[in-house]
Parts: sequence; structure tokens; C-alpha cells
Amino acid sequence: MSLLLTGNSASLSEEELDEYSDGTVKLRNSNIELMDQDILYHLALGSESHDLQEMFGDVKFVCMGGTPKRMENFAHFIMNEIGYKLPAGTQLQDISAYSYRYSMYKVGPVLCVSHGMGTPSVSILMHEMIKLMYHAKCKDPVFIRIGTCGGVGVDGGTVIITEDALDGQLRNSHEFTILGETIHRPAKLDKKLARELKSLASADDPYDTIIGKTLCTNDFYEGQGRLDGAFCEFSENDKMAYLEKLREHGVVNIEMESTIFAALTHHAGIKAAVVCVALLNRLNGDQVNAPKEVMNEWQQRPQILVSRYIRKILTHNGQLKSLFGHQGSIKSPRRFKLVQQESQAHE
Amino acid sequence: MSLLLTGNSASLSEEELDEYSDGTVKLRNSNIELMDQDILYHLALGSESHDLQEMFGDVKFVCMGGTPKRMENFAHFIMNEIGYKLPAGTQLQDISAYSYRYSMYKVGPVLCVSHGMGTPSVSILMHEMIKLMYHAKCKDPVFIRIGTCGGVGVDGGTVIITEDALDGQLRNSHEFTILGETIHRPAKLDKKLARELKSLASADDPYDTIIGKTLCTNDFYEGQGRLDGAFCEFSENDKMAYLEKLREHGVVNIEMESTIFAALTHHAGIKAAVVCVALLNRLNGDQVNAPKEVMNEWQQRPQILVSRYIRKILTHNGQLKSLFGHQGSIKSPRRFKLVQQESQAHE
Repeated sequence: MSLLLTGNSASLSEEELDEYSDGTVKLRNSNIELMDQDILYHLALGSESHDLQEMFGDVKFVCMGGTPKRMENFAHFIMNEIGYKLPAGTQLQDISAYSYRYSMYKVGPVLCVSHGMGTPSVSILMHEMIKLMYHAKCKDPVFIRIGTCGGVGVDGGTVIITEDALDGQLRNSHEFTILGETIHRPAKLDKKLARELKSLASADDPYDTIIGKTLCTNDFYEGQGRLDGAFCEFSENDKMAYLEKLREHGVVNIEMESTIFAALTHHAGIKAAVVCVALLNRLNGDQVNAPKEVMNEWQQRPQILVSRYIRKILTHNGQLKSLFGHQGSIKSPRRFKLVQQESQAHE
Repeated sequence: MSLLLTGNSASLSEEELDEYSDGTVKLRNSNIELMDQDILYHLALGSESHDLQEMFGDVKFVCMGGTPKRMENFAHFIMNEIGYKLPAGTQLQDISAYSYRYSMYKVGPVLCVSHGMGTPSVSILMHEMIKLMYHAKCKDPVFIRIGTCGGVGVDGGTVIITEDALDGQLRNSHEFTILGETIHRPAKLDKKLARELKSLASADDPYDTIIGKTLCTNDFYEGQGRLDGAFCEFSENDKMAYLEKLREHGVVNIEMESTIFAALTHHAGIKAAVVCVALLNRLNGDQVNAPKEVMNEWQQRPQILVSRYIRKILTHNGQLKSLFGHQGSIKSPRRFKLVQQESQAHE
């Protein structure tokens, strides 16, 4: 048995290995081609039951986030941002509804998928999304995780682009147990993409957008040094010393998905980034206390940054069909509202 | 700093430490009592915003499973099984809907909660459920995970009660990283409860119900030795040798949640069990191919076993109000259907 740790080889040559010259995703698993059908269980899709190339061949951006609700919101937001029009009488449908696991919405070239909480949940999704890119023959897809996090020495509301994803031992890798053997794969993200995203922050944004290291943990309470879990076997001083150590190490935020997201996209040769908003500064406390409206506004911030990036790329490729603010089939929102009211009154 | 590994001390004396003499759950975290309010973020509940004792004080059974859908189904199933009647004009409501993370349904003494996929997702939920038991002053609650799994040398449709939960290195513990330090907590389940559940399997059941060891992994594909992930760097022979090694070790099934579920319930002194149905025999393949109707019937099997247990305990305590098959407010299903049809015709 040989489990090859495709470690710190030059990233360019590795990427070249991972995709065909036309930019489609190459699978590092020869078994798939030999299978009668490849069922993507957790997406409720199959390679022979569905025409995956017809359905997904045009996907350029795969945006992921924790909850189905946030990704549904993002789907509607990005639809407006890129001026994508649905045919009259249609609405977005959760493509993976029958998996009861993840939710997936497609808005033209943008796929919006929920990944649940924690690295194992993301791991399952990543395997199936990478296989989906392969079956659909998507060209040069970019994966972006849009998340929430705790800030370390960073105010709530700050947008953080991950430079390096670190595991609980501050290693820039993700640990896998495969056939009982432990291996590490580098948790590398695309630095150029991170800088490009950073460059799209506007001086007019009423908040900071920064790049820094992200700690990825397997728990929200003890695993992130919180004092308010069901168990706490350390003191507040221990906690503060730990957070201070993180800060000295360059860690600016803590979440629960970045290492696996980085490790599997890197292993597949897919360009990827992680953009999160801090919901609090962990140096000031553990509980998230911001009012709901404030939190909702904060959660839009990474979405705004990612939408600027998507608009930029689509514009560059001549694919942005219409402009910001276009409302689809609604010519006048005021008159639309009146028609709705009139219609309801005549039941 | 001292992180105490509350390891292999005698389990009885440890349990005595973990609960008050009246059976209510004792928190191993003195910080909680000092807090102004304890927000259970991922459940959309708070200790001061909600009267948790009024809402949840009567809970005796906490049943958990992966998807919101399965737990909603279980809630309706157990409602029928224990003859629990909702007031006229009411329906079950997802108590945690506004968390957009987990779903929670309450049917009298039974709480039905979804936990997502993988140990980190379960970890977050367990911290908040244990705190919920504490705030609600629940007495001697029993936690049961109702799941799906891959069988190892066991046919699809077999019901498996976990004897011991093992991690990827076949250790009967769960690894935690707390303030950067790695510790293990025993992943122990209640053996008496496992035997009691086993005793409720009926000779008339057209399937086997067995007790055995459960392997808990952090991934569904490479982590479980599947050949059909986005990556596969081992051969079929390697895979089969690994599964055979698992079998020799007494492992009968593989899933992704049991070690954290066992470790945190044990650490909290809460009686717990894991009951899963195998969706396939991994010695015969990787992809789950059973038809949907068969899979749905299989997924009811652990629910049936758990409902027998809940009915037995409630009967023993004189709390089972009515008998199996009672349909709530519907006296005659045939006439009910007719009334519905008539009503629809007179729109």
C-alpha cells in the first residue's frame, strides 16, 4: 500500500497535473471512469441519471457556506448582482433537496451550496463537488467558502480573507486517516486569488477587509477555548494566554471548515479562497451578542466582496449580461406591489 | 493549566459525580451559573429569553439523527407510538428553525433533534443539548442516536446497536484539541442500555438486530476506504484488507458520529446508546444501491426499536397515556378523507 503525501512540491507543476489542458477538472481516481454510474448521494445527483454536463457545464464559481438559508440568500443576492434573469414563471429550486443533507442553488455560472458545520461535513461535500465538476466538464472552476467566524483581535463585522488555514496544532495542513493510516495534506489556498479579493475591498466600505491566518477547529466550545460550553476545564487566564498565542502566530480568526476546504481543493488543483466575517472579537468574550439586524448586515459583507469578484471576472470575460440593480421581470416595484394587492383583494 | 483526562475511573462513581441526587444533569462548568444569560446559539434558545424548564422540564428521551427530515419523521412516528395528542388546531413546530442549523421537535417527553454530519457538528449540538438539560432541570434524560451506517460483513437492513465506539485508530475514545493540547476522553456508551435495546428486538422482525463495535470516521470516502471518492490512492486489495482487519477487530459498522456522541454523554454522566441501520455491506461494494422504498423502510427499523424502548419505559413509569395506533383527533380515517374531499370541492 502506498499513500502518497503530495506535499510541498511546486504548486504550479502540481496544478498542471490536476487538470487537463482545456481547464476541466481531472479526477485523481481512475475507478470513477470504470463505474456504471457514479451516484453523488449527498447531492441527490447521478452521472447517468442526470445530464450533469448539460446541467452544470457552465459553472465557473462554486460558493459554499454553512447553512442552506445563507446560501439561498446568497443565490438571490448574486442573481441580482450579475443581472441573471430566470425565465418568466420560474423560481430557484434546491437541486439537492432530496438528499436532505445539503442545499444547492444554481444561478447561471454560480453554484451556491451549503456545507453544514465542521470538516467531515465539508469533506463529503468536497468529494462530491469535485466529482461533479469532473462529470460536468466545468472549466477552471473557482471555489469560495463564504463563512462566519470568531475574530482574534479583530472587531465584529470585519471581513477576513484566509491566507493560510491552520489546524488545532497550528499546522498548515489537514490530517486525514485513510485505511487507518494518518497523513497530512497541505491546506493551501490560492494567494493570488486572496490578494485579488482583498483588492476589491472599497475604501468606502464602512468596515475593514483583511488577510490573515485562520485557525480551523473541530469544536465551537472547548475547541475554540470558549468558557461557556457544557464543559470547561481551563481558566479564563489559560484561555486568554491561548488566544494571545494565536494572535502572535498571525491568526486573525477561528472557524471550523477551512483546512479541509483548502486541502481538498488544493489536492484537486482547484483555485480556492475562504472569506469570512467575524461575529465577535474573541479577546472580548465568548457569546455572540450583536443584534440580529447587525448580524444579518455583517453576513452580507463577505457576499458583497465575492460578488464584486464574480462581476469582475464575468465582465472581463464579456459574460456580464446586464447591470447591477436590474430587477428581472419587474419593471416598476411600486406598480408591482399595487397589482399584488389588487389581486389579493379579489379572492 | 490542567486539563484533566477523566479517564478510566470506575464508571459508577463518575456518574454519581455528574448528576445531582434528584437525577438532574450537573454541569461540569461553573462559568455558566455566573453568566447573565446563556445563549444556545445553534438551537435558537436562551436561558433568560425562554423558560427552558417550562418548555423542556418533562424531557426524558433525547433522540438524535443526521437530517432534519428524518427527525421530523421520527417525531410524527413516536407521537403515534406513544399516543401523544397535540391540542386541536396545532402541529409540530421546528423549535430551532431560526438557528438554520439544527431542527428540533418535541413530542411530550421525547425530544427529536437533527445533528448534521460528522463529529464537529455533533459536538456543537451536544454542548448545547447538555446545557439545555441542565437549564431545564431534566431528570435522568437518556440520549439515543438513531443513524444510518455502512455494515462490515453485515447485510443492508440490519439494525446495529453500538457496543463500543472506535476512532480511526481503533481507540475506544474521542480525541479533543483544547487550547492546542490533545486529550482523549473515553467513548463509552451504556452497556446495560445496549442490552436492553437488544432485548426489544422481536423474533418476528424480518431482519437481524445485533450488538457490535462501531468505527467512527471523519470522512465518507477515503476515510471509510471507499474507492469512489474524488481521490483514491489505495487499491481494492488495500481496501479489502482494511475492512477485513476491522472485522477481525469486532467492527460491524462504520459511521461518522459515534465517538463524540459517546464521549460527551459519558463525560456528562448521561446514559446513551447508538442504534443504526446498515445501508449496505461494505464487503460487497461502496455505492448504496437499494431502491428508495427499501431504504426508507430500513431507516424505520432503528426508529421502531427505539420506540419500543420508549414505550416500555413510559409504561413502566405509568406515563403511557394511550395505546399504539391511536390517531389523535381522527375518529374514522375513511370519513376524514371524505370530509376533506367534500371541503376541497366547495372552494
